[in-house]
Amino acid sequence: MASSNITPFVLPVPLTADRPSLGDNSADLDRLRRALRAILPDSRPLEIPFSRVVELCRRFRQADFSGVALVNDLPERWVLADFLPEMPAMLPAMALDLGTTHLEATLVDLLTGRILSTAGRENSQIEYGADILSRIHQATNVRRQVREVDLAFMDPGLLLLQQSIVACINTLTAELVAGSGLMAGEIRALSISGNTTMTHLLLGLDPFHICREPYIPMVNSIEPMESRELGLTLHPSAPVWIMPSVGSYFGGDLISGILASGMASSGQTRMLIDVGTNAEVVLGNRDWLIACAGAAGPALEGGVARMGMRAAPGAIEYVSIDPATYVLEVKTIDGAPARGICGSGLIDLVASLYLARIIDIRGKFRDPARESDPDRAAFMRQRVVVRDGQWAFVVVMAMDGGGGEVLLEQIDLDAMIRSKAAMYAVLTTLMGQVGLDFIDLAEICVAGAFGNHINPRRAITLGMLPDLDLSAYRAIGNSSLQGAEQVLLARSARQECLEIVSKITYVELNVNQEFMIRFSGARFIPHTDPSLFPSVPLFAEEKEEW
Amino acid sequence: MASSNITPFVLPVPLTADRPSLGDNSADLDRLRRALRAILPDSRPLEIPFSRVVELCRRFRQADFSGVALVNDLPERWVLADFLPEMPAMLPAMALDLGTTHLEATLVDLLTGRILSTAGRENSQIEYGADILSRIHQATNVRRQVREVDLAFMDPGLLLLQQSIVACINTLTAELVAGSGLMAGEIRALSISGNTTMTHLLLGLDPFHICREPYIPMVNSIEPMESRELGLTLHPSAPVWIMPSVGSYFGGDLISGILASGMASSGQTRMLIDVGTNAEVVLGNRDWLIACAGAAGPALEGGVARMGMRAAPGAIEYVSIDPATYVLEVKTIDGAPARGICGSGLIDLVASLYLARIIDIRGKFRDPARESDPDRAAFMRQRVVVRDGQWAFVVVMAMDGGGGEVLLEQIDLDAMIRSKAAMYAVLTTLMGQVGLDFIDLAEICVAGAFGNHINPRRAITLGMLPDLDLSAYRAIGNSSLQGAEQVLLARSARQECLEIVSKITYVELNVNQEFMIRFSGARFIPHTDPSLFPSVPLFAEEKEEW
Repeated sequence: MASSNITPFVLPVPLTADRPSLGDNSADLDRLRRALRAILPDSRPLEIPFSRVVELCRRFRQADFSGVALVNDLPERWVLADFLPEMPAMLPAMALDLGTTHLEATLVDLLTGRILSTAGRENSQIEYGADILSRIHQATNVRRQVREVDLAFMDPGLLLLQQSIVACINTLTAELVAGSGLMAGEIRALSISGNTTMTHLLLGLDPFHICREPYIPMVNSIEPMESRELGLTLHPSAPVWIMPSVGSYFGGDLISGILASGMASSGQTRMLIDVGTNAEVVLGNRDWLIACAGAAGPALEGGVARMGMRAAPGAIEYVSIDPATYVLEVKTIDGAPARGICGSGLIDLVASLYLARIIDIRGKFRDPARESDPDRAAFMRQRVVVRDGQWAFVVVMAMDGGGGEVLLEQIDLDAMIRSKAAMYAVLTTLMGQVGLDFIDLAEICVAGAFGNHINPRRAITLGMLPDLDLSAYRAIGNSSLQGAEQVLLARSARQECLEIVSKITYVELNVNQEFMIRFSGARFIPHTDPSLFPSVPLFAEEKEEW
Repeated sequence: MASSNITPFVLPVPLTADRPSLGDNSADLDRLRRALRAILPDSRPLEIPFSRVVELCRRFRQADFSGVALVNDLPERWVLADFLPEMPAMLPAMALDLGTTHLEATLVDLLTGRILSTAGRENSQIEYGADILSRIHQATNVRRQVREVDLAFMDPGLLLLQQSIVACINTLTAELVAGSGLMAGEIRALSISGNTTMTHLLLGLDPFHICREPYIPMVNSIEPMESRELGLTLHPSAPVWIMPSVGSYFGGDLISGILASGMASSGQTRMLIDVGTNAEVVLGNRDWLIACAGAAGPALEGGVARMGMRAAPGAIEYVSIDPATYVLEVKTIDGAPARGICGSGLIDLVASLYLARIIDIRGKFRDPARESDPDRAAFMRQRVVVRDGQWAFVVVMAMDGGGGEVLLEQIDLDAMIRSKAAMYAVLTTLMGQVGLDFIDLAEICVAGAFGNHINPRRAITLGMLPDLDLSAYRAIGNSSLQGAEQVLLARSARQECLEIVSKITYVELNVNQEFMIRFSGARFIPHTDPSLFPSVPLFAEEKEEW
């Protein structure tokens, strides 16, 4: 059996069945079922899918009625998937974070919990649209042309997107096992965390209604299917766990994150912030969970600023401007020549511009010509330029470091202010819903690349995150992938996912008046009510050593 | 819903789900599941197979969240199979008797229980072998050549037989719906009664061990699979009920017969006799069931007598010889020119030959030359001839009625005596096992064509069936097919099949000493102990008017 603290998605069960005799003429399958039933740890029904019967009977005979049954541990039943002559050295399973732009996977040994390998690649659907909305558009193009037609088959656009992502996962799987001596067909289970649209596109489900009021997905929770039913190259009977979602804009990736954060199993109240295309925020503890999502993210993920880009080599990830000397410091990921600016760099930059008084509390460039401080005026004359009739800040000059010019334009600044205002409004609206203050929180978990790269102090300076002690913030990494790994290894994690979904209250911000009021109040740096951010003036006076 | 007394294998459930709104943002599938769950008559788990999810979601939306769910009623769970916009006029399902030589099917309306049509055709596997043993031989030919090889795929011989029977069922299905305006794809369920080997050949299961000690099938009971998994042309999600079997020589066809006879639900003790290739006999009531099978049948199904044939046009089904006048009367099925003799005709003939003293109590022809009665001597000189150095009886002379000569040879007579002795020995061995006498039985049900055609009085004369009042015998027809029809229409019948299997005790006659002793004692007409058959001398004196 597996390590005692592991309750894997696929359980290996060593067994020796009674041998056939004239005195015991049970059929092979009944013999196997009886021996297995006597050992299984609980009384959930034991199903033997017809698709496995022929091969199971053959392998059970070949093993001379003694070996190891592999049993998929599904929420409401056991499913007998295979029979091996002996306990394998390892039992590989795959965890997958199915992101809109990027896929990340790990190969996990179900016997030991050990991570065997990791791999990642770009989501191949990007060729059909960079964001979710354009992919839904692509997937439902026939629908748009001939509405109300009885489509007996899958929309060809949807089929194309489905085939694309299946092929992408298969390529990723090949990378995951490359050099390990394993074959993809030896991977016995898969768990997938993805947002609701990505899940629909993978399963071939019509995503048409996801982005149209009242924003209803076809499926939130779905029972595990077999790998072969999706056209994957894993073992054909590998069960596929799809992380359940709560709604169109609150997907399985976030449920996975809640699981990984541990917030849903703790008595203390925590907040989880996951910034991707949307800012998704969850608040709660083991007794209650409340969540919302808002379009706060684009500026932070490189989706809005003209020079914005994902956190990748050449992205500016760190900026500082010394408010005394006006020395500008810029760091790029991997030290590569600057190609653009990622979310954390943008936050750094805007916070620095504010503290150095290059921009005002509205996020507007001050007029360099009206600047009275001579040092600042000199700096501004050098860096603040007019482009297309608007002010812009030259973050990196052409030829600096060998790359092209990197600019921050007023339009980018405006978007950034809207994003940070939306983020803060989301957080405060959610706190308001339950009547708590930020100080009541045990922790704010910040997920993903955003969490790994941002400097909470800079985000506080902007009034994007609440003015708490920095120890309140914890970067938890790719929690979507971590949750997927957890469900492979623990039945309690699989149960918890379903409990999270049933427990969570989703607040729809699109129709929330309070959110709109809070959003307006947050469109200043740090806020229309500066008393909410007492630390910010102190930050301005400190020599930066963030 | 269906008629109140019908609990069909596929239950139509009219429902109207809540429509999506901003206030109820459940996913479509959850909405459907919730509405259905609230209506289903019990708490068995509700499963939605992944193979149906895409289409279900589409059809549920198209029907505007209101219509009729079709739910497969499986023993341990409900399976949502389809969603229709409105209640259909009928819900066709197919019952199939999957015989070794012949297939019989009925189309049944699950809403009303009405029989819509019937069809039958020869089992196409006959081209690969007339009997079970030669088909097992054919199915496992690769196995025989390279034993112990790890066959990763199905044996090609087995594949051929499987494809043959699937095609045969598909042709039969087409005949069943021909002219009805229905398409095969509209048939929503299938139930199949077949012997253990036929079931293995249909499911693609290796039958190699069925005919080798200790005679262990791969599978006795199997959960219903979907029609598409077998390559059938019915609706792809039509559940397929395979009648469970008890062992290699006691198949689902007989379980179906037990169900149809009603013996397993009655307090009175009954006997069921089903004569096919084997004579299969069951004894019992609702509290216990005991069964055995013996190779008693061949002579009775046209498999042994050289002129033997199945009950079909041109088969002699009735023979009488007036013991006073020696007038020979012969009737063929449909009055067609005589082509051979079927089981009932053979019994009639041998009983008549015995009563007319043409053969002796050992079943041997008397020597016409030594006959003292002049009328009998004249008849024998005309009818009892020498062929290949052996006596033979000319049942039909060449040119009589336009057909060829039909002979009964001594070798056929010997086989017939062995068959009838085996049959009687099976019956008495079974009674002996439970310490009952024939007189204790409420009824003897005789199934199949044999039951429809034989004259119990003639069978008693031969000592094949016990000497009971003729009212004790009831011909119940194709009980294998009737049982298959019952499981389509009643959950209680589906449950009863499984209970019958768990309740039945199977007596293996191949290793039974008592059977061999009883068999020897039964090799006389009517028996070595004539006191067991007091009526037979009376039959001899009566003017025949059977």
